[in-house]
Amino acid sequence: MTKKVLKFGGTSVGTIERIQHVAKIIGKERDLGNEIIVVVSAMAGKTNELIKLSSSITNNFNKRELDVLLSSGEQVTCALLAGALNQIKIDAKSWLNWQIPILTEGDHSNARIINMNINNINNYIKKGVAVIPGFQGVSKSGDITTIGRGGSDATAVAVAKIFDTDSCEIYTDVDGVFSTDPKKIPVAKKIDKISYDEMLELSSLGAKVMQSSAVQTAMMYDIPLEVKSTFTDRKGTKIFNQENIDYTKSVTGVAYSKDESKVTLIGVEDKPGVAANIFEPLNKAQINVDMVIQNISSDQKTTDITFTIKRDDLLKTIELLKINNRIKYKSISHNDKVAKVSIVGAGMVSTPGVTYKMFRGLADEKINILAISTSEIKLSVIIDEENTLNAVKKLHTIFDLD
Amino acid sequence: MTKKVLKFGGTSVGTIERIQHVAKIIGKERDLGNEIIVVVSAMAGKTNELIKLSSSITNNFNKRELDVLLSSGEQVTCALLAGALNQIKIDAKSWLNWQIPILTEGDHSNARIINMNINNINNYIKKGVAVIPGFQGVSKSGDITTIGRGGSDATAVAVAKIFDTDSCEIYTDVDGVFSTDPKKIPVAKKIDKISYDEMLELSSLGAKVMQSSAVQTAMMYDIPLEVKSTFTDRKGTKIFNQENIDYTKSVTGVAYSKDESKVTLIGVEDKPGVAANIFEPLNKAQINVDMVIQNISSDQKTTDITFTIKRDDLLKTIELLKINNRIKYKSISHNDKVAKVSIVGAGMVSTPGVTYKMFRGLADEKINILAISTSEIKLSVIIDEENTLNAVKKLHTIFDLD
Repeated sequence: MTKKVLKFGGTSVGTIERIQHVAKIIGKERDLGNEIIVVVSAMAGKTNELIKLSSSITNNFNKRELDVLLSSGEQVTCALLAGALNQIKIDAKSWLNWQIPILTEGDHSNARIINMNINNINNYIKKGVAVIPGFQGVSKSGDITTIGRGGSDATAVAVAKIFDTDSCEIYTDVDGVFSTDPKKIPVAKKIDKISYDEMLELSSLGAKVMQSSAVQTAMMYDIPLEVKSTFTDRKGTKIFNQENIDYTKSVTGVAYSKDESKVTLIGVEDKPGVAANIFEPLNKAQINVDMVIQNISSDQKTTDITFTIKRDDLLKTIELLKINNRIKYKSISHNDKVAKVSIVGAGMVSTPGVTYKMFRGLADEKINILAISTSEIKLSVIIDEENTLNAVKKLHTIFDLD
Repeated sequence: MTKKVLKFGGTSVGTIERIQHVAKIIGKERDLGNEIIVVVSAMAGKTNELIKLSSSITNNFNKRELDVLLSSGEQVTCALLAGALNQIKIDAKSWLNWQIPILTEGDHSNARIINMNINNINNYIKKGVAVIPGFQGVSKSGDITTIGRGGSDATAVAVAKIFDTDSCEIYTDVDGVFSTDPKKIPVAKKIDKISYDEMLELSSLGAKVMQSSAVQTAMMYDIPLEVKSTFTDRKGTKIFNQENIDYTKSVTGVAYSKDESKVTLIGVEDKPGVAANIFEPLNKAQINVDMVIQNISSDQKTTDITFTIKRDDLLKTIELLKINNRIKYKSISHNDKVAKVSIVGAGMVSTPGVTYKMFRGLADEKINILAISTSEIKLSVIIDEENTLNAVKKLHTIFDLD
């Protein structure tokens, strides 16, 4: 008997017809003799609709009550899906967060799942499908909590871990993880197998197939994932531990993000603590700093610090830097027409020349590199925004991903 | 310290603006030093929207899951109202059915509230407002249950009883209970005080201000009710035990219902069990029979039986009568263009001549009476539908209700 957790995201359950379609997918899995726990998101648009209701009262809505409000979205999907399963003669039952219970700790809207009671559901799935809500749980004090946007992925991974399931399948509205954005680069190819690290780099770079923290948890407990489409029968992408993957290619995918801007502080006094002094006020203002590059300056007493932030945060960032009297620098330059392009691949470290090949490729296209940042499995460059698609296409080709 | 339960219906919480308005009403009551438990309905239209979702899967939706689905409506209102109260600096907390818990017994969609845990809420309302969902509870086995449409009134009355509150105030979209339908008969007057019995007769006759079974429960436990408007500051209608009311008028109100049809079985064999044989198949088909009038026939061996049903049920009823081989009769006549007009008043029994006065008044208007039925506090006649408003106006005037 194989025990599976199947997770269906918001678009997969976005209409009644889709919920009925999902019921059929579950029915097939059940007919194969699997024991099934289903994790569902709120119907597409529902969570935003509920947030809009709360924010028309105040943007500072009581966090406990916001969790009570938002958790109703998945409750609705649970009931509808369980009803749709019953309708096609499949035993099924919804289990709400407090009925399981899904125990969480931590703050409202940002809690973590720490445990679930497995006995009742383990008994039930011998004869029927258990449908449970993603994104939520209940605290030790009996309050409803939520675990952050996209948290249904995290619920699915937690179920896989706590129930010790044989697989964790994430059904979504795309066929899997792609070597780059298939909407913009038609030669993008679906990746059959990918490591957790690569998946994390790709998803943090804009391939929003799965929520990053859920992938992290899966990596931590070595839970194999499978991302697949609700709407086609195609094979999806399997996400494993690196050692389970036979790398034939140095680069797995090319990611990009156009929503960037770049700030450079020129001639910053080069002494300990200066970077901390720069970034502390940005952190307080919840501005997320992405790449940070520091170079020694020509006079060897000062340094230039470049970093990237989301475009929307640029004005606020410049303002915070200007009123920050704890740092001394000669000037600020900034550019809000930049993009970040990255190649990702666990095979990169062991393949010489990847870096050179990337730079050569971009040079061939006459694309100027404004900044570079590297990690073990990723190499990112900042370039002018207008060159983004050209760069992605070129890199996709020269790393044999087409 | 006065302990109050305030119930707000669907239209009272139908928009965010109205929820904020309700928060202000609660704030005023709290400022007066009252301890407050609030019972809320789903936002107007919400329950129907959820039912529509389920019925687009099947009209025979699993009843357990339907309860899970529908209960989310009041959950949303609870969270929004608690958040709106917090926003105007009033301590408030939502308590869901399982958090209290509201214990029920009986079938899904038709459960009854049998108990609530009072300790936590009694402690809490010393410092804040408890907001709880109407219409729902949780069974002994831990499943969500609902208690039937309009069940938020029943929840409010149950809270009043179990928490032993000093008052039970039903906030709605009308000023109170009227002597007849104010939308159609402009001289209709709001009734300041009314007995439970009269309220029951009026509400079962179409004055849909409060759910009947909730009034019955209030009567059984002698819980005084007050029906008042969410949208005006006017005094509402108090509903008491009969002995607390000083009757100056024999008739309290005139009710009518136009959605009626009348069926007469002529020449029915007059022997024991015949009425049961007639109505058993109707009961099985869930056709609600309202008035039943039986007269001896001219030949003294047979009888004529007349009854009224909802117009929508007429065809089905005729069909069931025709295939019913357990009764013998000469012929069936029916009329689907009839209305029921009733005068209601606890003072009627002790006031001679009310019956005559009613018949005289209708005769003055040249309105023919097709059937008559009486109870201790009600006198109903069936008349041609086209005469309904004329009849109501006339009766309203001659019984000094204008």
